[in-house]
Amino acid sequence: MTIEITGQNIIAGQVVANGAGTFQAVNPATSKTTSYTFHEATFKSVDVAATAAAEAFDVLRNTSAEQRAIFLETIAAEIEALGDTLLEAANEETALGLPRLTGERGRTTGQLRAFATLLREGSFVDAIIDTAQLDRQPTPRSDIRRMSFPIGVVAIFTPNNFPFAFGVLGGDTASALAAGCPVIVKGHPSHPASNELFAIAINRAIAKTGFPAGTFSLLQGSGIDIGQYLVKQAVLRAVAFTGSLKGGRAIFDTAAYRPHPIPVFAEMGSINPVALLPKAILQGGDSLADNLVNSVTLGSGQFCTNPGLIFLLDNADSNAFIETVSEKMQAKQAGTLLNSGVKQYLEANVSTTMGKDSVQIKTGGSIVEDARICYENTVMQTSAQAFIDDADLQREHFGPVTLFVLCQSLDEMKAAFQTLEGNLTATIHAADDELKTATKLFDVLREKAGRLLLNGFPTGVEVVQSMVHGGPYPATTASGTSSVGMTAIRRFLRPIAFQNMPDSMLPEAIQNANPLNIWRIVDGEYTKDSL
Amino acid sequence: MTIEITGQNIIAGQVVANGAGTFQAVNPATSKTTSYTFHEATFKSVDVAATAAAEAFDVLRNTSAEQRAIFLETIAAEIEALGDTLLEAANEETALGLPRLTGERGRTTGQLRAFATLLREGSFVDAIIDTAQLDRQPTPRSDIRRMSFPIGVVAIFTPNNFPFAFGVLGGDTASALAAGCPVIVKGHPSHPASNELFAIAINRAIAKTGFPAGTFSLLQGSGIDIGQYLVKQAVLRAVAFTGSLKGGRAIFDTAAYRPHPIPVFAEMGSINPVALLPKAILQGGDSLADNLVNSVTLGSGQFCTNPGLIFLLDNADSNAFIETVSEKMQAKQAGTLLNSGVKQYLEANVSTTMGKDSVQIKTGGSIVEDARICYENTVMQTSAQAFIDDADLQREHFGPVTLFVLCQSLDEMKAAFQTLEGNLTATIHAADDELKTATKLFDVLREKAGRLLLNGFPTGVEVVQSMVHGGPYPATTASGTSSVGMTAIRRFLRPIAFQNMPDSMLPEAIQNANPLNIWRIVDGEYTKDSL
Repeated sequence: MTIEITGQNIIAGQVVANGAGTFQAVNPATSKTTSYTFHEATFKSVDVAATAAAEAFDVLRNTSAEQRAIFLETIAAEIEALGDTLLEAANEETALGLPRLTGERGRTTGQLRAFATLLREGSFVDAIIDTAQLDRQPTPRSDIRRMSFPIGVVAIFTPNNFPFAFGVLGGDTASALAAGCPVIVKGHPSHPASNELFAIAINRAIAKTGFPAGTFSLLQGSGIDIGQYLVKQAVLRAVAFTGSLKGGRAIFDTAAYRPHPIPVFAEMGSINPVALLPKAILQGGDSLADNLVNSVTLGSGQFCTNPGLIFLLDNADSNAFIETVSEKMQAKQAGTLLNSGVKQYLEANVSTTMGKDSVQIKTGGSIVEDARICYENTVMQTSAQAFIDDADLQREHFGPVTLFVLCQSLDEMKAAFQTLEGNLTATIHAADDELKTATKLFDVLREKAGRLLLNGFPTGVEVVQSMVHGGPYPATTASGTSSVGMTAIRRFLRPIAFQNMPDSMLPEAIQNANPLNIWRIVDGEYTKDSL
Repeated sequence: MTIEITGQNIIAGQVVANGAGTFQAVNPATSKTTSYTFHEATFKSVDVAATAAAEAFDVLRNTSAEQRAIFLETIAAEIEALGDTLLEAANEETALGLPRLTGERGRTTGQLRAFATLLREGSFVDAIIDTAQLDRQPTPRSDIRRMSFPIGVVAIFTPNNFPFAFGVLGGDTASALAAGCPVIVKGHPSHPASNELFAIAINRAIAKTGFPAGTFSLLQGSGIDIGQYLVKQAVLRAVAFTGSLKGGRAIFDTAAYRPHPIPVFAEMGSINPVALLPKAILQGGDSLADNLVNSVTLGSGQFCTNPGLIFLLDNADSNAFIETVSEKMQAKQAGTLLNSGVKQYLEANVSTTMGKDSVQIKTGGSIVEDARICYENTVMQTSAQAFIDDADLQREHFGPVTLFVLCQSLDEMKAAFQTLEGNLTATIHAADDELKTATKLFDVLREKAGRLLLNGFPTGVEVVQSMVHGGPYPATTASGTSSVGMTAIRRFLRPIAFQNMPDSMLPEAIQNANPLNIWRIVDGEYTKDSL
């Protein structure tokens, strides 16, 4: 099967390229532009996408969960049908390597199918029924039933670091489509060919399942103006964003200015503190150092759950451990970064941190001069007191970089934790007889993160119902939500109550007979029984 | 028992009045100031409240659901212990009448106890467990468990129209305390004595249960500057607001500008469209007219669910029905309004609407010259075409006022519905053989409201799990939430995942044995079983 990459914007199933601007992606492994030229989306194409999405919503909002499950499964199959074309195009644009991309493709199709399973199980609609009390005094109580419906058209901004799993058909799109919301995706300009291939896959699925063309549009573009224009569209009911704090906050602020404000679910990165308690360091030894290095350098350190801060007590064992980690970081070949912007931003941030009197450089700290876009694996060190005194030491270094923070006592470690901004994750490594200490420290960290890990590493986010990939600001703008896992669908649902309606007027999920066989709360009790 | 109203601000259990400014409430039945003078809260008192609340949160966030249930029940008992003092003080300030206030007190204590029941049942924490898969390839899957925790300090702004049920210890406060969040309440200046009595009640409950003093603070004030200063406090993690669109939007905008943005759950009113289908009008006759008049004039029309728009087909029956309603509205004594601001705002809004060429006045339309603060029961009429052409006909008239909209066809009625802004409710009255028509119209209204009613009236909001008191903007700023009913607690909760932790480090709700005996989702299945 030959798949032609057109470089055009695909708006509601139609190729639209009515502007003069073009851009090209760069292969990070060679620093050379890739073979395709892409058209910048225009304001007009945003308008077309918005109108088509609004029309599509009028159909999608009345699709059954089963219809949407089939749609998601068809999308997954169409992604697989892209075969090596997708992997090779993505590898040329990202240099992430075929093994990583193959694994990430599996996660991407897996999460589409996991949402299909959730839809078929059906209880996600959060059905709650309170039956009538006709003899209540002084007035009778009506029958009231609620369930959730899709919120409307969703705009999605994809990041540079997960071209598949958080890309055009990644977690945000999967959860919005599962909810029944049309999506308009602003694809990341670092990997536009991958973006277009995903658009081809979903448009094939749309054609096969008879979903409306406006269910999906892809906007390609290298600047920020198209995204800002998109967020102002009146038809939008929510925005999902994954990327930098600066970008996320700009989107959030634009949405807040709207005449009709809408929620912005922005995941904006994190520095993911890790504490290594003394006995855990002793017990973990070389293996712990290896695992830490692997986590810090995974994906060239460009993961939102990258462990960027390592807290430990200031003693001989800790200092030896830091030396070991630094040696291993130095010995490991520096990975390829996603694009030159990431490299420049990383260099600027590491330089700022290294420039502080309170910070020592242990290894790295420089750009690697190479055809690859590349930065040295970097380890820095500071004191907890400096960390407490200088909030700027919580600066994110988006790359293979970590900062050790030496604490004079567990109390000082706790004090340092209390100054932490919001993060996606917080981790403690503890030996068995350090678990009580860990519990006390977790009590502080609970207010600082969305996920707490014991004796593990935060990279590697499972796509399961229990996952929380979120956290207090600035990790996200909506700490009550998760962008990974099945509960991501809740961001795009809205409850509606039906009062005093006969069964014939009710959606199946809240009809007396419970024809969907879902879990419901009826008069305060969880049950699958019919009424 | 003598209860002294001090007129002082009660911040974290301490009387604080360090400013010079004072204000007095007005008895709307006499237009005379009431007997107490109240101190305006100062910026300093806000600072004290914020610091105390942050300290209290460190205790509250580790209280058990049972402890909080006892706390809520103690608050309810202390409200009852205020006895007639509360009812009389509130009646002097609001002129709502003792029967209404007695009923509203019952709702207020009832909802505190309903949240206690929810806490004891325990499943509100939304526990989800995915067990480890140690033999998964290529990497094992860790055990991951999530549940919800309180979000942090909450600021609450109370409205003029429900001095009890949405007052200082009303639904927002009850749901925030149930979640485990300290609250700082900005009480409405129309009823400051009621505000202070509630502060006395909760501080007695705090003393009896040993909860920290900073769990609750009351700010009294007649201006907007204290509220704006409150919303900027760094310790806040959410704001709940009930009031006008103008006030709610101002709070929302201030919160959006914060360095650390927080959710604002603002319920900002609604015009609550009602459609009366032809046979329903014929069958309903005089009784339907009576019920409509009663709903429009309930609480002098000052309910957020007041039916302010009535759609019907333009025929002889409809016109006769409008005449009947107009006569009944004219014959009914005009109710007393809450304050002179409401009266002035109502007069300005009705004047603007009446001034349009497309609008006819059927009855009312003037201030009642009386010692009471009072406005005539008012009925206006327009055409669906005018309604479609002029978005300003969706202006809220906060008082005993409704606007009939005559439609030339059901298609035109549907077209008018499509132009509706967000509302809390939408209602259709239909005879049995009009239910299919109603279903089609509800399909449009579903995108416009949080609650859909058949053959009823939207006033009278039940405090049950299934209630949705929310809706698309501008009804609220957070259409995914409800401010009435048990799900209101979800606004103040945040999920946290625990990865790879032994039972000893987990909260009870997600321990293997399920010691709280709550419903949980374990590996995708709803169950109360232990692991």
